[in-house]
Amino acid sequence: MTFVEKLSGAWRANRSLVCVGLDPDPQKLPESLTSKRAPIFEFNKAIVDATADLVCAYKPQIAYYAACGAEDQLALTIDYILATYPRIPVILDAKRGDIGSTAEMYAAEAFDRYAADAVTVNPYMGSDTLKPFLDRADKGVVILCRTSNAGAGELQGLKSDGQEIYLHVASLASRKWNYNGNVMLVVGATAPVELAAVRKVCPDLPLLVPGVGAQGGDVEKVLGSGLREDGYGLVINSSRGIIYAGKGPDFAAAARAAATQLRDQINGYR
Amino acid sequence: MTFVEKLSGAWRANRSLVCVGLDPDPQKLPESLTSKRAPIFEFNKAIVDATADLVCAYKPQIAYYAACGAEDQLALTIDYILATYPRIPVILDAKRGDIGSTAEMYAAEAFDRYAADAVTVNPYMGSDTLKPFLDRADKGVVILCRTSNAGAGELQGLKSDGQEIYLHVASLASRKWNYNGNVMLVVGATAPVELAAVRKVCPDLPLLVPGVGAQGGDVEKVLGSGLREDGYGLVINSSRGIIYAGKGPDFAAAARAAATQLRDQINGYR
Repeated sequence: MTFVEKLSGAWRANRSLVCVGLDPDPQKLPESLTSKRAPIFEFNKAIVDATADLVCAYKPQIAYYAACGAEDQLALTIDYILATYPRIPVILDAKRGDIGSTAEMYAAEAFDRYAADAVTVNPYMGSDTLKPFLDRADKGVVILCRTSNAGAGELQGLKSDGQEIYLHVASLASRKWNYNGNVMLVVGATAPVELAAVRKVCPDLPLLVPGVGAQGGDVEKVLGSGLREDGYGLVINSSRGIIYAGKGPDFAAAARAAATQLRDQINGYR
Repeated sequence: MTFVEKLSGAWRANRSLVCVGLDPDPQKLPESLTSKRAPIFEFNKAIVDATADLVCAYKPQIAYYAACGAEDQLALTIDYILATYPRIPVILDAKRGDIGSTAEMYAAEAFDRYAADAVTVNPYMGSDTLKPFLDRADKGVVILCRTSNAGAGELQGLKSDGQEIYLHVASLASRKWNYNGNVMLVVGATAPVELAAVRKVCPDLPLLVPGVGAQGGDVEKVLGSGLREDGYGLVINSSRGIIYAGKGPDFAAAARAAATQLRDQINGYR
């Protein structure tokens, strides 16, 4: 099964466009977990067990694990999701990008070492640097297009030949990079006008949309701008809004409540 | 001592603009090392011991360690260089980039976990995503500008307001990002015309120049295009051309010979 098939199945099985970002800051873990041997993994496991029927994907952000040398707990987390909830895809958020020979190594990191279903990548270096990822037909390649942060427009919004850089990326994704049908684009929830423009260039591509919740993106506008004609096509990520919904020993129940609310809010606009 | 001071010292102490890229592909290690407990570290240590008086920096590429779960050997390598050759800066090649809260984690990975003197980063997401790196005044921030790969021009070469994107990056580096005096730019040796254009926009910034050796960049053109008025300002990286110069048990001596040759070739054009 390819990544896109797995994602399509999860959208439908759970009637959900919600992706939960597993970005566990060791400083913010509930006290009840701090004495555990693998507290980050235990935190993730509890969140995953509480939300697996409510989501279409999980997205661990590798920086949170790399900062504290917890690659083993990232691997435990991904292994656990793949073994326990085999219908839910795992997107490794890593935003990798380098020359071809190095990109091969990054593809091995995401797809072989961690066995993620998809990985986020940065297009700044060009097509040849994306190829080692794109060639993995069974895996998803989630390419940064228009990001959710305040300064995203600084380079991405520069116009060339009458078209912003992020639309050049969208156009390359549609015309050139999707030869294995495994491309997704990142477009931030904080940029609904840009999201609509990308959807116009790429009517069928799945889009990963971060930036609802803590970053302030508007769910109604995201759905209005980005939904595909079939009512799917979006993977709407919330990290802090879900995983830190509660701080006490009931954090998993609080995460479930927050994920339910986001799923229902999204479905209300579909 | 700041990164730039350390780099300036190493340029002068070793009379060298050569940076050795420590990109150890486990498939290509000499057979004499494969039975060791930490073969990647032993390989790096031998290369470093053989070249430390010939270089201005070392640049481990994190992807080679991450692909095979050898973060511990990356840490051993950096620790060894910092402890044994404290005048030689270590640039961690990671090309990170993400929203601010995540970029904080990547800065912690490079500067706190690994204690690297500098890290490479990707500017596609904009100023706010570089800030957590730039704020570390004692550390170097090496920003991708015009890369060395064949497809580099695809996005970096698009023109906006009469100026290519990579020159917008150079201009931002010069005007906006260098508030702590810790910025370097990456400009590939394979693009000497672009290198000259960046040097014009940024007359004083140190430039990291990959792409000589295996990638085919021309040393004479690099010096002619990128050298600073003081005869320094370039960190010219060779990875495969030096670390795989020999394949037998004498690989370290072969690496020393290759590094000597490159240093002397470069100094011949200064």
